Amino acid sequence: MFQVPHHDGSALYVPSSPDLGAAVPVRLRVPHAFGSVERVFVRSLRDAEPHYDEAVLLGTDGAWDWWEASVLLVNPVTRYRFLLEVGASEGSSWHWLNAEGFFTRDTPDVHDFRMVTHEPAPSWARSGVIYQIFPDRFGRSTSAASEAPDWAVPCDWDAPVQPTGPDTPYQFYGGDLDGITKRLDHIASLGATVVYLTPFFPARSNHRYDASTFAMVDPLLGGDEALIRLVSAAHERGLKVIGDLTTNHTGAAHEWFRTASSDPASEEAGFYYFSEDGSEYASWFGVPSLPKLNWLSPALRDRFVSGPGSVVARFLEAPFKLDGWRIDVANMTGRHGDVDLNHSVASAVRSTMRSVNPDTLLLAESTNDAAQDFDGDTWHGAMTYSNFTRPLWQWLAGSSDVNFFGTPLPGPNRIPAEQFVELHAVFAAAFPWQVRTQNMIALNTHDTARASTVMVPGGQLIGLGILFSMPGIPTLFAGDEFGLEGINGEDSRTPMPWDSLTTSHQDLYDAVAHLGRLRRDVPALAFGGLRWLYAQGDVLVYLREHVSGSVLVVASRSGFDEVQLPLDLIGVPLDGQPTELWSTGSISAEWAADSVGFSGDGLGIGLWQLPGVGYGFSP
Amino acid sequence: MFQVPHHDGSALYVPSSPDLGAAVPVRLRVPHAFGSVERVFVRSLRDAEPHYDEAVLLGTDGAWDWWEASVLLVNPVTRYRFLLEVGASEGSSWHWLNAEGFFTRDTPDVHDFRMVTHEPAPSWARSGVIYQIFPDRFGRSTSAASEAPDWAVPCDWDAPVQPTGPDTPYQFYGGDLDGITKRLDHIASLGATVVYLTPFFPARSNHRYDASTFAMVDPLLGGDEALIRLVSAAHERGLKVIGDLTTNHTGAAHEWFRTASSDPASEEAGFYYFSEDGSEYASWFGVPSLPKLNWLSPALRDRFVSGPGSVVARFLEAPFKLDGWRIDVANMTGRHGDVDLNHSVASAVRSTMRSVNPDTLLLAESTNDAAQDFDGDTWHGAMTYSNFTRPLWQWLAGSSDVNFFGTPLPGPNRIPAEQFVELHAVFAAAFPWQVRTQNMIALNTHDTARASTVMVPGGQLIGLGILFSMPGIPTLFAGDEFGLEGINGEDSRTPMPWDSLTTSHQDLYDAVAHLGRLRRDVPALAFGGLRWLYAQGDVLVYLREHVSGSVLVVASRSGFDEVQLPLDLIGVPLDGQPTELWSTGSISAEWAADSVGFSGDGLGIGLWQLPGVGYGFSP
Repeated sequence: MFQVPHHDGSALYVPSSPDLGAAVPVRLRVPHAFGSVERVFVRSLRDAEPHYDEAVLLGTDGAWDWWEASVLLVNPVTRYRFLLEVGASEGSSWHWLNAEGFFTRDTPDVHDFRMVTHEPAPSWARSGVIYQIFPDRFGRSTSAASEAPDWAVPCDWDAPVQPTGPDTPYQFYGGDLDGITKRLDHIASLGATVVYLTPFFPARSNHRYDASTFAMVDPLLGGDEALIRLVSAAHERGLKVIGDLTTNHTGAAHEWFRTASSDPASEEAGFYYFSEDGSEYASWFGVPSLPKLNWLSPALRDRFVSGPGSVVARFLEAPFKLDGWRIDVANMTGRHGDVDLNHSVASAVRSTMRSVNPDTLLLAESTNDAAQDFDGDTWHGAMTYSNFTRPLWQWLAGSSDVNFFGTPLPGPNRIPAEQFVELHAVFAAAFPWQVRTQNMIALNTHDTARASTVMVPGGQLIGLGILFSMPGIPTLFAGDEFGLEGINGEDSRTPMPWDSLTTSHQDLYDAVAHLGRLRRDVPALAFGGLRWLYAQGDVLVYLREHVSGSVLVVASRSGFDEVQLPLDLIGVPLDGQPTELWSTGSISAEWAADSVGFSGDGLGIGLWQLPGVGYGFSP
Repeated sequence: MFQVPHHDGSALYVPSSPDLGAAVPVRLRVPHAFGSVERVFVRSLRDAEPHYDEAVLLGTDGAWDWWEASVLLVNPVTRYRFLLEVGASEGSSWHWLNAEGFFTRDTPDVHDFRMVTHEPAPSWARSGVIYQIFPDRFGRSTSAASEAPDWAVPCDWDAPVQPTGPDTPYQFYGGDLDGITKRLDHIASLGATVVYLTPFFPARSNHRYDASTFAMVDPLLGGDEALIRLVSAAHERGLKVIGDLTTNHTGAAHEWFRTASSDPASEEAGFYYFSEDGSEYASWFGVPSLPKLNWLSPALRDRFVSGPGSVVARFLEAPFKLDGWRIDVANMTGRHGDVDLNHSVASAVRSTMRSVNPDTLLLAESTNDAAQDFDGDTWHGAMTYSNFTRPLWQWLAGSSDVNFFGTPLPGPNRIPAEQFVELHAVFAAAFPWQVRTQNMIALNTHDTARASTVMVPGGQLIGLGILFSMPGIPTLFAGDEFGLEGINGEDSRTPMPWDSLTTSHQDLYDAVAHLGRLRRDVPALAFGGLRWLYAQGDVLVYLREHVSGSVLVVASRSGFDEVQLPLDLIGVPLDGQPTELWSTGSISAEWAADSVGFSGDGLGIGLWQLPGVGYGFSP
């Protein structure tokens, strides 16, 4: 299954950041064990019509042949795949390799590899680790919370969070931005490089996705000055900070919506979708407190996203100097009935950010299957679950019935490793490689149950090992480093247990910090190609391959019989016994002359350093 | 493999032509042989966010349960799929059914069913049969050709066509429109209902895709008056006539391009993509005689597609009264580098047609995988090969090496029936059902080799049986009814052998005419759902299911051991021995109390009439 031709769009196979109109070399590797390949072509689309370029045999590296063709990038996004002629001329046949894998039948364009010429996200983002914070629950700057507002149900820091119920959105723990500032060293010590704050605008709920204004930082969080202090302190430590914007809706208490409701002749009335008589309005999934924005309004566009005075721009500029935005329900933004302005709004946001500060990051929530909306021209990457979190929960599923991403059925289906790899091919490889390295990947977020609740006991740590060794920006939700629990998003927003940490918290924290450092120190983990070597039932084996050195990962969700892999499959000659970078559980490796055997008697994961790949481009 | 839940988007499962904003019932059938299903949900997207509606058990028809949910069509195109909870609560698990089939893992949105609220193509088109004519090669109105133009290489009617070579585009046989008019009875006798003419504009080649003007019909074809006579005579016989437009390019001899080339300040200069110094211009795949149109020009849009005076409109109006257009290389139209105006141009064409005469048909060439461009809002249907012609050639492949749709490797790969069904799921089911019934399906066209050359001896007739019993508008290329041969598109443009017809021509003609009549008389063939019953190696069995009666089709490409199918799989109680509608070759059926056995000792195909399905909506 894995002794097949390989390409993944990473810098091993195509130069990074190609230009529109350029002819770029595109490479393919074919293992000798696969058999003879007569000819190789790259099929690319030019203005939506197929074009074929024949590849030449470049050379041999270990037990793999490398082929290369030159592909002209006629369009900003080029779809391409490989056509291989296999066997002798009598009975010769063709096979295709696309982003989903290797096929002996025709394949649709939608599964082609995609190469993008749009500028990538800042390199600090692509090599970074995100640490997500829900401001009400991270830390207080003073021992007592600020005075609670009228909508709030004040809670002591150690009071239990209610997973569902009328008080759920109103439980107020009083965390604030200065409370984050004083813990920045904790965040940096985990290897995290980017702090992502869920909304900091004034609102009428603890989650603040129902902004009542975009003109200031919530005084309950310390106001504008507290944000300036936080960003400045973060920058001093080399940390970046990004905020969270709701482009799909505002709160019903928003100043725009109040003007719109009271004055149908106002400019703001055009910001929303009111019924003819003004008595009804469109809202996020019918929730009246979240009126939906109408992007047909040019005035809304001016105030919110276009140009230097807009909300998007203002917080990226001095004195705030945020380093980017995460956009809430980006998938629904600008989409309403027969109107679809999603791409146009997304373009405007990116364009403003590019002009204000090109070194900023634009991530977009699209919890559902996001691949087709992400070409790298608007949002840099997706905050989504289909391609990583969902499959990982399913592979490491325990016995808990938790909410599974909005599906009406309980808990994740437990799947074997081979289906994990299939889901990866279907959902993750559907993104252009560049976008994949800019997607957030997470075990869980403020909108989901916690991995430590969902997964088999000990599974969260295996999950963390996978998280830090997969393409995408590893994203921790504050508390992951302490193994916090939660049966749904609300329940996962537990206040950080600063005052009740134990040795077991410390052990998990140490593991996360070790993985964070590895991610920073080993380029293959952020930028390497991804190749599966083995996937069956309880065991997953994969490589992150890079010219500067590759990383081999073996993960298991239970004990397993020894897995023997030929070194030819790994594909690089070893220079001695590979170094173990990190392991947990009982995974061990026996390196022999031409094979390696892995074994384990329980959950485990191990990472080993291997020599680099000979034929890759430099990233 | 086929005892699984089924839905295909046809009128059995959803009402036809639903309205935007409507709540529509959506049905699913589950065979008892599949096992117990606890709950069924329909997952649909609303403004790109998933929503779940629970289905109720509607009742039982034969050995199948029917479920129904109500789905709100929030957007003009609604993606939806089914979520089934299978088995008892301990160890219950979920499965998905989407347009690609039945899955035990998560599936991406791109493979969802799509329901469209756009108005369908005219019913004469959806229930019709197209007969395609290459005007230079169909018939002369006089015994001698008109005087040949300067670019032409005059040929006698029975002179061989050159498949490739410098003279290929210039061989001039002198067919004309009056030569078609006098053969309309032949066309009608085949059961064809729509005549599709490749371009009739003046040009400098026999194919006329390099128009030198859109202002008149080529005088070599008889001029405007001949087209008026042809359409009028066709309409008298109940036949429709559609033309062929090149929206991607004109000829280099076009009056617009000549003005543009000689006067860089002219309005026409903006119709094309000239280099800064005017010395170079973009053209279709770099062919200088086909300069590419630049749809950024508002003046081009006015003259070509917008409003009553445009080229698109003029020939639909009196005195011409064409019934529609086929658009050449529609997939490339408006796409050039970083500009993509494809959807906008397509919208403008449809909008003009709708306003001039809503009873017209708009088909669009997109030879490649077209599914993602076809939502039913612009082009009604696609002239494409990936979803039908390619798989059929591959299943019925003979030993000829012919050009295989532009791929650089010779001949079709021979595939087994199970891969034919897989390709169908991947390429054909990727269209919304409504669009599928509006797609052209063909064994071959003027741009391909002929089926009788490509397929095993006798295979063309099996192919014709499949063509007339699949969803889509069956399309014959003139000469298919006589089994004409051709190794590529040019070679297939043989002049019609009116003066040398033999008994074997007559036999094939009779078979085609019988199939054409069946298609007209049996609603299931145009409008029925499609369900596969068996697909292995040399044998394909499928049903077209309809409330008014269903059709069972068994096709084989060689002799085969008896195939036994349980009547439960067919799913309707029989009222006596089913009537054979048509068969060829050695296919026979033995109907028993609870099963049916098919056998054959060579190529064959048979169609049987079955009772209608109990639970369907009326189409």
